[in-house]
Amino acid sequence: MPATEKSLIRRIRQLSGKPALARIPLGIGDDAAVLRVPAPHEVLITTDFSLEGVHFRREWHSPESIGHRCLTRGLSDIAAMGGQPLAAFLSLALPAKLPQRWVDGFLRGLLGLAHQQGITLAGGDTAQSPGAGSNAKILADIVVVGSAPRGKALRRAGAKPGDSIYVTGELGASAFALEALLAQPKKKLDPKMHPAHFYPQPRLAVGRYLRERGIATSMIDVSDGLSTELHHLCEQSRVSAYVAAELIPRAHDATLEHALHGGEDYELLFTAPANRKVPRSIAGVAVTRIGKIRSGPARVSLLEGLRRRELRPGGWEHFNDPRRSSGKRSSGRRSA
Amino acid sequence: MPATEKSLIRRIRQLSGKPALARIPLGIGDDAAVLRVPAPHEVLITTDFSLEGVHFRREWHSPESIGHRCLTRGLSDIAAMGGQPLAAFLSLALPAKLPQRWVDGFLRGLLGLAHQQGITLAGGDTAQSPGAGSNAKILADIVVVGSAPRGKALRRAGAKPGDSIYVTGELGASAFALEALLAQPKKKLDPKMHPAHFYPQPRLAVGRYLRERGIATSMIDVSDGLSTELHHLCEQSRVSAYVAAELIPRAHDATLEHALHGGEDYELLFTAPANRKVPRSIAGVAVTRIGKIRSGPARVSLLEGLRRRELRPGGWEHFNDPRRSSGKRSSGRRSA
Repeated sequence: MPATEKSLIRRIRQLSGKPALARIPLGIGDDAAVLRVPAPHEVLITTDFSLEGVHFRREWHSPESIGHRCLTRGLSDIAAMGGQPLAAFLSLALPAKLPQRWVDGFLRGLLGLAHQQGITLAGGDTAQSPGAGSNAKILADIVVVGSAPRGKALRRAGAKPGDSIYVTGELGASAFALEALLAQPKKKLDPKMHPAHFYPQPRLAVGRYLRERGIATSMIDVSDGLSTELHHLCEQSRVSAYVAAELIPRAHDATLEHALHGGEDYELLFTAPANRKVPRSIAGVAVTRIGKIRSGPARVSLLEGLRRRELRPGGWEHFNDPRRSSGKRSSGRRSA
Repeated sequence: MPATEKSLIRRIRQLSGKPALARIPLGIGDDAAVLRVPAPHEVLITTDFSLEGVHFRREWHSPESIGHRCLTRGLSDIAAMGGQPLAAFLSLALPAKLPQRWVDGFLRGLLGLAHQQGITLAGGDTAQSPGAGSNAKILADIVVVGSAPRGKALRRAGAKPGDSIYVTGELGASAFALEALLAQPKKKLDPKMHPAHFYPQPRLAVGRYLRERGIATSMIDVSDGLSTELHHLCEQSRVSAYVAAELIPRAHDATLEHALHGGEDYELLFTAPANRKVPRSIAGVAVTRIGKIRSGPARVSLLEGLRRRELRPGGWEHFNDPRRSSGKRSSGRRSA
């Protein structure tokens, strides 16, 4: 059983370390935290759930991996704005009988990534999860606050006809691992063999580079799958897109379907003017041109050799998948 | 069953209305929201869970009341800093079979209060709740972002020996209603007869007044009960306190125990120098002097006639109450 709420907060505070007072004059322990954002900057804010049985399973994911993935979800959103993360806030509800070592592992995973990215856990909320026994689930909501110079944050809107479409890293590795887990739910996967699934890295340095150099015209992170995110980008930019299947950088073992529809890769998808030189690698991460933006309604076409087909959003959507009722997550093959 | 995730987000966006672009250049619909805080201001951030079976029950509370209470929790924290709220973010997980009219009622309650306080719902996250059937719970996490002039936010630390202790409004009404609900779980209470429980008002105008006039030396909101909050204030200020039972403003019907230990009143508890004139009413809300700060270890004494006893924190604490496992909330009598 976890400690009382007060001692849980004390533990979080202890593990979080002292915030940098110049940026966070007041962290955990008051009614609200106080943050200072550099004067010509705007504040970026994003919130993301990590719910047991929806976003992770205790049988599959170690507490460290769950904590890491929880924070990655928020940091990746800040990366997709080209932002600088500043602080995180964690609302955490725990079952009464959860072992303290689980909580410590979760915090280690989350705070390890926070430390690596130079941000502070500055506040949040704690509660006991509703329900009894195995019906009581671990419920986390992460808030990440960042900043970007006024008017410079990279939005989903902004892609122009003629722009090239790029993606960072490789796609499909997380979906491949998830499919393996779903196929043999009792078998554990070695996190070291599947880092993209268990310890995904938010592409903060790449996002900032693209914003600082004024390279990208629009950007989004690939959390729900390339097909879904590219549709979002087209909708917001009021353009259409086409991508070439052979250009999409696929992770080892991943199929084209994994790369097209698999979620949780946390790579960045962005557009840049056709004549803009874009490095092949930024901050050690590969950058690959995969397609082009056109005028027209928000639709995505996939070119495969001589064939061309419409690529519908095939990524994960809550409330819409019968498999979800069993606590499974789409394996990224829904529209295959 | 609620609409798909995409249409739920569309619905929230639609009901939220357009944000004021000068303050919120980018609201719902991108990777992160973009907020502008006035230049000499600091950013205030707070997060608060509202979990079915922990913070509310669907049998007792209408969706409108649950939405209103959800946002009050966050706004009250900003009030306790003397801050100006700016925007809210909502992470909302819903059971697959929840009727759409419940969702609409919840949003009406939440957005009605947001509108009243001049803030915008600027983002968040949606998911399907884990679990099946009645084990799938409504899970909300509200984030409220506000601001205060640099260095001026009112903290829990700051009370000095000799300061007077004040509280706004009346205490115990919410605990009284909760006790009535617990005593007869099948019986509905009329929300109009118990507004403090069903539609508590965050004391934003009072908090701002106290900050602007430089009256308060420390402040906290009474969300977990007077005894608990006064202890927090003493701990953070490194002082002790005594309060006179007869001075504590009690709501009609509320007992002294309700007023001392009952949570969810969302009144403000603050300290001010003894020689500082404090109005008896601020923004239409009564302000009552209830005690004094002393030097010494963080302890609270209660004076009742000629008797004096130690007042231990008796408010709500998660993980620590056997009654919680049945989804009940402490009735505020734990340390009676």
